[in-house]
Amino acid sequence: MRPDDANVAGNVHGGTVLKMIEEAGAIISTRHCNSQNGERCVAALARVERTDFLSPMCIGEVAHVSAEITYTSKHSVEVQVHVMSENILTGTKKLTNKATLWYVPLSLKNVDKVLEVPPVVYSRQEQEEEGRKRYEAQKLERMETKWRNGDIIQPVLNPEPNTVSYSQSSLIHLVGPSDCTLHGFVHGGVTMKLMDEVAGIVAARHCKTNIVTASVDAINFHDKIRKGCVITISGRMTFTSNKSMEIEVLVDADPVVNNFVKRYRAASAFFTYVSLSPEGKSLPVPQLVPETEDEKKRFEEGKGRYLQMKAKRQGQAETQA
Amino acid sequence: MRPDDANVAGNVHGGTVLKMIEEAGAIISTRHCNSQNGERCVAALARVERTDFLSPMCIGEVAHVSAEITYTSKHSVEVQVHVMSENILTGTKKLTNKATLWYVPLSLKNVDKVLEVPPVVYSRQEQEEEGRKRYEAQKLERMETKWRNGDIIQPVLNPEPNTVSYSQSSLIHLVGPSDCTLHGFVHGGVTMKLMDEVAGIVAARHCKTNIVTASVDAINFHDKIRKGCVITISGRMTFTSNKSMEIEVLVDADPVVNNFVKRYRAASAFFTYVSLSPEGKSLPVPQLVPETEDEKKRFEEGKGRYLQMKAKRQGQAETQA
Amino acid sequence: MRPDDANVAGNVHGGTVLKMIEEAGAIISTRHCNSQNGERCVAALARVERTDFLSPMCIGEVAHVSAEITYTSKHSVEVQVHVMSENILTGTKKLTNKATLWYVPLSLKNVDKVLEVPPVVYSRQEQEEEGRKRYEAQKLERMETKWRNGDIIQPVLNPEPNTVSYSQSSLIHLVGPSDCTLHGFVHGGVTMKLMDEVAGIVAARHCKTNIVTASVDAINFHDKIRKGCVITISGRMTFTSNKSMEIEVLVDADPVVNNFVKRYRAASAFFTYVSLSPEGKSLPVPQLVPETEDEKKRFEEGKGRYLQMKAKRQGQAETQA
Repeated sequence: MRPDDANVAGNVHGGTVLKMIEEAGAIISTRHCNSQNGERCVAALARVERTDFLSPMCIGEVAHVSAEITYTSKHSVEVQVHVMSENILTGTKKLTNKATLWYVPLSLKNVDKVLEVPPVVYSRQEQEEEGRKRYEAQKLERMETKWRNGDIIQPVLNPEPNTVSYSQSSLIHLVGPSDCTLHGFVHGGVTMKLMDEVAGIVAARHCKTNIVTASVDAINFHDKIRKGCVITISGRMTFTSNKSMEIEVLVDADPVVNNFVKRYRAASAFFTYVSLSPEGKSLPVPQLVPETEDEKKRFEEGKGRYLQMKAKRQGQAETQA
Repeated sequence: MRPDDANVAGNVHGGTVLKMIEEAGAIISTRHCNSQNGERCVAALARVERTDFLSPMCIGEVAHVSAEITYTSKHSVEVQVHVMSENILTGTKKLTNKATLWYVPLSLKNVDKVLEVPPVVYSRQEQEEEGRKRYEAQKLERMETKWRNGDIIQPVLNPEPNTVSYSQSSLIHLVGPSDCTLHGFVHGGVTMKLMDEVAGIVAARHCKTNIVTASVDAINFHDKIRKGCVITISGRMTFTSNKSMEIEVLVDADPVVNNFVKRYRAASAFFTYVSLSPEGKSLPVPQLVPETEDEKKRFEEGKGRYLQMKAKRQGQAETQA
Repeated sequence: MRPDDANVAGNVHGGTVLKMIEEAGAIISTRHCNSQNGERCVAALARVERTDFLSPMCIGEVAHVSAEITYTSKHSVEVQVHVMSENILTGTKKLTNKATLWYVPLSLKNVDKVLEVPPVVYSRQEQEEEGRKRYEAQKLERMETKWRNGDIIQPVLNPEPNTVSYSQSSLIHLVGPSDCTLHGFVHGGVTMKLMDEVAGIVAARHCKTNIVTASVDAINFHDKIRKGCVITISGRMTFTSNKSMEIEVLVDADPVVNNFVKRYRAASAFFTYVSLSPEGKSLPVPQLVPETEDEKKRFEEGKGRYLQMKAKRQGQAETQA
């Protein structure tokens, strides 16, 4: 990990970790989908399941990323990725991240055509059944969160501190060759890195301290982003608990050199950030002040997600105890 | 020049050229300012004079950047930089750019303290006098263009095509380690590259074709941008002639992790872009429709700059004929 | 491998491969040198043995880099690195590169102090003896090639095609934070990447075709390059055979903000390039015309290296047959 991968305090950006995870996932699933004779294809990221950042990674550490295919449906591949950080001076290794990603194989001849996935071989019989359940669950969730294209983040004049308008931020990015696969669309990992960057700016503007990514909610990729697009990544704070902030990030693609394709929603997700003292201790965050009806509604929804996750964690803790 | 330095049509971004120019200027002026025993310093960019992009540079070409110190005042250094593009397969060399930059030496112990510049030795006596005139002229111009901090670019809902609101764009950028000098402030070249990027997005949104930078008006750096800032770079179209577009770009710095420093205007400039057909011929551009009083005023001012530059070029052409 | 790692024809630059090799070597040797309790240290690259590029790597392929410690002396570590390229669409894997690197552990408290290396455990007894021979051989060679600091590459006015002056090239680079280790000196891999870049420009200028790195002679790192230096990388052609070009590359470091340290020679090596047709076949190269006495001497020395290598390869081929 190099200085450019990290914030001023030396913690590696969550987005850098997400990008590495996606690279590993794209390699293993593209390799698998081409393992039989037939049409050549490239695996495109469709979804990343919710993931927690378990321990921070620092500049100078070595990241170990390992990926495994854990389920295949007719048209999709599930990949599980583990990230370990190793301090090569002390020898300490820590689990940083576990993530589950879904890929879809697209034909190299026509990237709008989805091909069939060769079935993976399971070592235990239950694995197939468990995978199928995860597959059905994510399919359902994807349908529920189909994004309303109309929902855009509007700027506001002279906002008050601690309001949603005060910290909301947008970034535009002109897609360049190194953001893309050879087949002319943007790597999912590049998009996630930009999403984390915007979420981080929103969080820093809100609490004016050093902040780090704590977790990312499921990210759905609704559509490919092609070469030559301008993408707008917008973030707004939706909810604060005592010590965490939830930020919604929307990605819109605008094919500037093509009049026939309209601007469309390409991806969306919720990022959770925490604020850290210079010594690395988690700090209380200023409470968000929702103003409009929509902001209040989103605050309540965010609270719902927060309480649900808290309950789930306590359940896990009790099970383990 | 690599794929990432260029747009989809293979033309190197003006911003990439500006960044190289600034690196050469920073090296030569830092070296000069440290050439005598005394306090160590680093040269910070204060101003870039108006510069034209005389011929496009392409991927695979080699850029030659040469810099020379042409004048020193008590606290500033003038550097002239030439950029040549060389096609190493055919051996063809072309002048791409001539630029004049002004630097100020800042103490390494305290980057808010400006040091004295060792005088340069002139080979001809007139050089000093000519340099002094350029120095006085730019000093005057800098005073005139002191930026109004209040002037910000406000987004508009559902804008009509060809209006100012339709193409205006903002980009936020979290300053990272590789954007900075070793002394914790952003390289002038990095800022100029981002400015050109935003101007390019505004131009592409307006005319929806392949566009290239034709020239950049004097860029004044009003204040240093420090590590840990979020910078907002905003661009709006101010004027269109038959075949060119003028875009105003404003750079504001927001020290997110420091409550005591307010958001401030760091730099500003006008970029001129032209639209190119796939064969590289210059195309007519859609005429800008100014709506508000301010937009009409800025359109007239832009027209003034355009006519003045046109007259100056004709004057030069006649002198040379 | 991404578009920016490759030349216009899609072949990954030798310098990109060298940079990956060095990263792997730096990680494994830093880990090894810190494996016992004692002063913490970082491994700095001292030398890379001659290495051949056995098959080209292309954009879209996955590079597998594996490193192993093969010998330790009191103050140095020998690492052997293998690079494989994998086409994940077809499943084809090819050996791209085998390299041997020597590292020296520098104390984190004082990077001018060399620490002791914990001895490696050999699986076969002969390994230690074989390693010792390699160690002695490289030590001898390093002494012989101590660089004459005075030998610099001088530009020449209006050179003729096919002469040394015609294709010689220099690149200056301002060392930035992302080029450096946490301890303030430049990664060996960064330097090698820049060296290969200059050698490639010299080769392309000479033969005006698509060119690729065929091999790199031993690279000796005479001294660390510290943060804040400007480095000049210069290349000149020394010898041509029918189908190959040898280019000498010199790296000089100039601490611009420190008057007490003089410009010094930091590294040097010979790169061998071949010229490829658009179909990837090796082409004859124009013969180099040495003009001065020094150029003629270097040409003869280059011829000596070329014939020696050819004889060695024939010897190996006969042994294997």
